[in-house]
Amino acid sequence: MTHPIIESFLRHSIERKDYQVVRQFLEEFQPADLCDLIQQESLPTALDILKFLSYERRARVFGYLPNTLQEQLAAEMSDDDVSLLLKHMDADEGADLLNLLPEERHDGVLRSIARKEREDLRRLASHSEGTAGAIMTSDYAAIPAHVKVSEALNIVRTTAPGAETIYQIFVTDGQHQLLGTVSLRELILAPQTAKIQDIMMTDIVTVSVDAAQEDAAKIISRYDLLALPVIDSESRLVGIITYDDAMDVAEAEATEDMHKSATIGNLEGNFRDARLLTLYRKRIVWLILLVFGNLFSGAGIAFFEDMIAAYVVLVFFLPVLVGSGGNAGSQAATLVIRGLATGDVDLKDWGRLLGRELVIASGLGLTMAMAISMVGHFRGGDEIALVVGLSMVSIVIVGSLVGMCLPFILNRLGWDPATASAPLVTTIADSAGVLIYFSIATAILGMPV
Amino acid sequence: MTHPIIESFLRHSIERKDYQVVRQFLEEFQPADLCDLIQQESLPTALDILKFLSYERRARVFGYLPNTLQEQLAAEMSDDDVSLLLKHMDADEGADLLNLLPEERHDGVLRSIARKEREDLRRLASHSEGTAGAIMTSDYAAIPAHVKVSEALNIVRTTAPGAETIYQIFVTDGQHQLLGTVSLRELILAPQTAKIQDIMMTDIVTVSVDAAQEDAAKIISRYDLLALPVIDSESRLVGIITYDDAMDVAEAEATEDMHKSATIGNLEGNFRDARLLTLYRKRIVWLILLVFGNLFSGAGIAFFEDMIAAYVVLVFFLPVLVGSGGNAGSQAATLVIRGLATGDVDLKDWGRLLGRELVIASGLGLTMAMAISMVGHFRGGDEIALVVGLSMVSIVIVGSLVGMCLPFILNRLGWDPATASAPLVTTIADSAGVLIYFSIATAILGMPV
Repeated sequence: MTHPIIESFLRHSIERKDYQVVRQFLEEFQPADLCDLIQQESLPTALDILKFLSYERRARVFGYLPNTLQEQLAAEMSDDDVSLLLKHMDADEGADLLNLLPEERHDGVLRSIARKEREDLRRLASHSEGTAGAIMTSDYAAIPAHVKVSEALNIVRTTAPGAETIYQIFVTDGQHQLLGTVSLRELILAPQTAKIQDIMMTDIVTVSVDAAQEDAAKIISRYDLLALPVIDSESRLVGIITYDDAMDVAEAEATEDMHKSATIGNLEGNFRDARLLTLYRKRIVWLILLVFGNLFSGAGIAFFEDMIAAYVVLVFFLPVLVGSGGNAGSQAATLVIRGLATGDVDLKDWGRLLGRELVIASGLGLTMAMAISMVGHFRGGDEIALVVGLSMVSIVIVGSLVGMCLPFILNRLGWDPATASAPLVTTIADSAGVLIYFSIATAILGMPV
Repeated sequence: MTHPIIESFLRHSIERKDYQVVRQFLEEFQPADLCDLIQQESLPTALDILKFLSYERRARVFGYLPNTLQEQLAAEMSDDDVSLLLKHMDADEGADLLNLLPEERHDGVLRSIARKEREDLRRLASHSEGTAGAIMTSDYAAIPAHVKVSEALNIVRTTAPGAETIYQIFVTDGQHQLLGTVSLRELILAPQTAKIQDIMMTDIVTVSVDAAQEDAAKIISRYDLLALPVIDSESRLVGIITYDDAMDVAEAEATEDMHKSATIGNLEGNFRDARLLTLYRKRIVWLILLVFGNLFSGAGIAFFEDMIAAYVVLVFFLPVLVGSGGNAGSQAATLVIRGLATGDVDLKDWGRLLGRELVIASGLGLTMAMAISMVGHFRGGDEIALVVGLSMVSIVIVGSLVGMCLPFILNRLGWDPATASAPLVTTIADSAGVLIYFSIATAILGMPV
């Protein structure tokens, strides 16, 4: 959301070494906008811009940058510069940065960091990718249960100025067991002499450190939480996940599902900046698989070669019939896949949804059969119209049922239902369509002699 | 996330009129879980459950319910009961409920509500659907600029206990002009004697009341805001949008995009509960349009009927060639559509992405041509292998370029690029594929005589 003129003026000032102007200028930007700016610059200019920022802002902006760029920038920085970043970054982002650095630099960049923070970073960095542990932060505000509201406020003031959020405060005992939560709002509005244990909420939603990130994001969205506590196997509080991280996870997840539904492998990061070879690899595997899938349709056609030679007019309707089955199927699959992803649909709904789909698909098929029969009548007469109409109803119903069932089956097998992508459904529906069409044609028109 | 046993026990207690048990029981539930429970019950039981909740919880849970259910439940309630709900609901949800009621009930349910709140509700309810105004709330915490931190805290304590959030506090003058913002965190950590005007942030991100909801959600996610101020045409602060509403909008938006990309019309609400006729209508329009689109492929085939009669083996490869172009095209379209939705890709990237897609598509096409040529060799000899191989490269490149360009063109025309759905791309790529295939075949094999 920055303006090109502003950007070119800034670049000009950097080149002219007008450092006072640059510094004043950069102060006006929001971190997210600075991040955009840096992504558009060359690596040396990006490093320059970062150096003009205060430590806090530098760390904030750096944390916003895509991982690939963070990696490149860190490679150009001294251990001390990286160390400064780590000190001022949120613990969760610092851990991510640590994971981007080559193993042999870890000791160097961690040397000047205080022992407690160093251990925190190492522990956070050790959680496997995709888990709640990997996106949580250990910078949370904690208070004991026995203090008064006024004391609690003081504890928060003095111990937690660096916490990622102080709006949700966690009540723990000496063994880090989570006893309850209290919001800063409640602390502000409650009588100052009330005891925390009397005003805290004890009905707490938590997530395990090993849970999937998407599950954590779903819980946050479901219960409208500001921060979700993360607990380990002995139910000790080990960190929190905040709503803004959940929003990022939910967005990445939706992107991943859309990509899978177009048979694009798990493409991490930004499409604009993805490398050519990466994009090629993410796309070719499924395309080749679908080539062989489509050969089944070809085999079906080869089986009916005599029929086709006798009634070439049948080929005219082949694309529309086969395509319609695939289209209806991919509609059904998308509805189920997205429903499963948002939690609107559950495995146990399977029977009911199948019955419903049967009714809807019949309706869709009949409507489409009427349309195509008219075309059939004009191009090939009444018999062809009958063949095409009957085929359309059957193919749409079969395609829809395939599209509806495949995501459930994959989910049942423990696979991601988004893999039941539209092209896969289309390919299966295509083969079925060819067989149905020519079988009906053979039955009505008779085998050619 | 409730357990079936718990639910059946609860139902049993309601039937036995064990009201004490029911009340105690319901207190244990989180609002989001109560909402699930109510959706599974019959209308009378749902009304019973609501009655057992305190006013605050009843309003909270009611606000969570889907619009269709809110409408049904409100229809069964007296004006006074609805009025009680409106009093305790957040202003934005109350306005939504008001919009669900028939016009003639408005005066009745608003009668017992205080004048200021009534006007608020009426004003909020008047914003058109899909705008920032329609999801904002007027329950925000505001303070003047000249007071000290300690006074500001007192103002928040006394005037804003009902505000949707007090974590982001808005500094306004007498004319409701937004001067700055200050977070509760800053109020807590700042010296108690500092003046608000000295500690407030003046670099504020705002959104216009007429802006699209998705734009507001994108801003909140981009700047990691807790609450986004909404201003009218005279830059007066009229409301705020909170992060949790933004998460709901972003999720609904991602769902809508996925549905559009499978040519399902804008299906609001829950797929599981959508009515049969609604689903039929949302799906049939595009299916019928695509039927006629697919007839172009048929027309292409009809044009080459003699060719097909002479070389029936060509039909064997028709599904795989035509299908591959569509698959590669829908991959490209999905990448662009999602990139445009998340803001990763911009209209001005068009030229660069097109060039890149050309390179990738050539790579994909060549790989797939090698695979299919081998099959062609075994089924029809070297000439056929050459025809299918050449066709594959050309069709994949054309399909990919169609898939890449269509979203940009639609975006340029001011349409939602998600409408450049996979089936539409597939249909266009199909027609092109038929023409390319048979043209190449004619050129290499020669016209039949």
